[in-house]
Amino acid sequence: MKDRVKRIFSNLTDNVDAIILMNGEEPNVDLSFFYVTGYESGLFEGCAAILWPDGKSDVISSALEESCAVGGDCQVMVYAKLAQRVQLLKERLRGVRRLGINGAGLSVSNLEEIKRASPGIDAIDISVAIEKTRIVKDDSEVELIRDACKIVSEVADDIPDFLEVEMKEYEAAAELSYKMQKKGASSPSFEPISSFGKNSADPHHSPNATVLRKGDFALFDFGAKYRRYCSDITRTFVAGKVSKRQREMYEAVLEAQATGLATIRAGVNGKDVDAAARSVIDELKGGGTMPHSLGHGLGLSIHDGGRMAPGVDLPLKKNMILTVEPGVYAPGYGGVRIEDVVCVKENGCEILTSASKNLTVI
Amino acid sequence: MKDRVKRIFSNLTDNVDAIILMNGEEPNVDLSFFYVTGYESGLFEGCAAILWPDGKSDVISSALEESCAVGGDCQVMVYAKLAQRVQLLKERLRGVRRLGINGAGLSVSNLEEIKRASPGIDAIDISVAIEKTRIVKDDSEVELIRDACKIVSEVADDIPDFLEVEMKEYEAAAELSYKMQKKGASSPSFEPISSFGKNSADPHHSPNATVLRKGDFALFDFGAKYRRYCSDITRTFVAGKVSKRQREMYEAVLEAQATGLATIRAGVNGKDVDAAARSVIDELKGGGTMPHSLGHGLGLSIHDGGRMAPGVDLPLKKNMILTVEPGVYAPGYGGVRIEDVVCVKENGCEILTSASKNLTVI
Repeated sequence: MKDRVKRIFSNLTDNVDAIILMNGEEPNVDLSFFYVTGYESGLFEGCAAILWPDGKSDVISSALEESCAVGGDCQVMVYAKLAQRVQLLKERLRGVRRLGINGAGLSVSNLEEIKRASPGIDAIDISVAIEKTRIVKDDSEVELIRDACKIVSEVADDIPDFLEVEMKEYEAAAELSYKMQKKGASSPSFEPISSFGKNSADPHHSPNATVLRKGDFALFDFGAKYRRYCSDITRTFVAGKVSKRQREMYEAVLEAQATGLATIRAGVNGKDVDAAARSVIDELKGGGTMPHSLGHGLGLSIHDGGRMAPGVDLPLKKNMILTVEPGVYAPGYGGVRIEDVVCVKENGCEILTSASKNLTVI
Repeated sequence: MKDRVKRIFSNLTDNVDAIILMNGEEPNVDLSFFYVTGYESGLFEGCAAILWPDGKSDVISSALEESCAVGGDCQVMVYAKLAQRVQLLKERLRGVRRLGINGAGLSVSNLEEIKRASPGIDAIDISVAIEKTRIVKDDSEVELIRDACKIVSEVADDIPDFLEVEMKEYEAAAELSYKMQKKGASSPSFEPISSFGKNSADPHHSPNATVLRKGDFALFDFGAKYRRYCSDITRTFVAGKVSKRQREMYEAVLEAQATGLATIRAGVNGKDVDAAARSVIDELKGGGTMPHSLGHGLGLSIHDGGRMAPGVDLPLKKNMILTVEPGVYAPGYGGVRIEDVVCVKENGCEILTSASKNLTVI
């Protein structure tokens, strides 16, 4: 993991002596901690990693996580009580004047503790350098995300086998999670969205006891976490018989996605990919709107830095991994979204999710 | 939810004009945001709630979450772009000089944004008051946790029906998640722990492809999230035939738990409950150790404030909800943990998880 630490330092715009990454209690952990340590097991609540310009890292680990912490290439120091953690912070930060912090992942309380341990230290928010580093994946990350994408692709292709009219949204969501985990996912990467009928018009609908009726859209947005890395996929089906309006909506989204995918390559700006895809949705005129970004970075986090969205500057680089997920939503009627994960290449992109996108009637 | 806001203000030791709770991106959200808004649906990344002493709340919501935000008793203001969020913060915080923040749940970056929106504002960490409020549940919270506990109790009692020798840890974990979700859980409340044989000696083991062998312990620690509230349960089984050492370990843990449970009532200190239970484990002498707390608060978060642990002052109050989870771990051999969820009462406690604790051989 030394390469990752060195890359973070090489992306800095400010000079710092060291960088600290520190977790709070679940859910407030900094996934960058796992990026630099490579730990696949363990929660590491309250634990910290101190990164040095030569690529080395010190980990201040709670006794509870010690067995997960040893064996990596970090130097591990263990605390049993909070006072010992403060003492270890004090010792390791001795001589550090300018300390980089990840402002987006560090809690105000933890920064206060660091300042108590090391009075007079100058905390500099280097979250931009961390995001810049993490947004471009190294080869081992691409392989893990590829594995996570394989799981969801297989599960998406299984949906027509288990989905049936009268099934409840949460029952379908349970099937998705189960199938992902049976294929080796440690967990869903987020609570699966399973939305039927007009519920599909809400992009972030939480599954409830709504049952699938003939004529409904059935939208599924789900992801697998595999060795800490995330995948993300959306497929939309229709129950019974497809209406003309449904077919128009589906085809518009499919075309919008194809347009977006064809635009992606290193050097293009994400906002231009968004605009290309969005223009297809806009042509539907009155058929619905797309109130969200075209896509987002994916990695250790489900939103792993970067968005392809109007007005958001994101020059695409080789080995960025992004979702491409246009949608169209007609409140009170329903919505369609189709989402794949891509890895940006010099001359295009590789689609890591392989599930069928043919309009399928259940 | 006005009562909750008023209770937070009544627990303050510092005087503040208003309190802000603000989410980052997943997983860095402040669950207190959901405590005061009561929103059951939606992610609310980047959204904020501003609380006023009269119990009213303003919610600054992204356009994406608007449909989830309306309908509650908060005043909702919607932003489409980040600049609008800053503007809304500026408008709503006008006149506020002393602003309470939840230091444990607020990121350094979000605090910087608040300070940019409202220069000169004095940010006061009132996380102690929030924890003090959330740690004592109101009746509607107790009912939700009771429902979440019912789900895991039923699933725990199902384990002997599906667990069999040669099953892999992650397959068993998938069964647990599936069964919880089929019973209405929105997701597991954390990644289920399923650990076989010597893996059970690691309290936070991540399930892998280890298969269950005759003579192994099989330890399962899992929880359900139901309408945002968590449950948490652990049961340990033995495959094939129970050895003398296994039986001694199991009985010690069971006795430690019974001792702890018998000690709990309003007015007792959590560290004394821990000590009572721990002394039973310590008597095992060489049979293993217990490197973790006896229990923790449970609610919106799986660690919802408060621990029953050596040296941690926690005067128990009526309607605190806690886990009671003694364990004994012998590295290289295996471990046993038994965990239930209790609600503290004036004269004892109510156990909310009902699954069997008889030593069961698979």
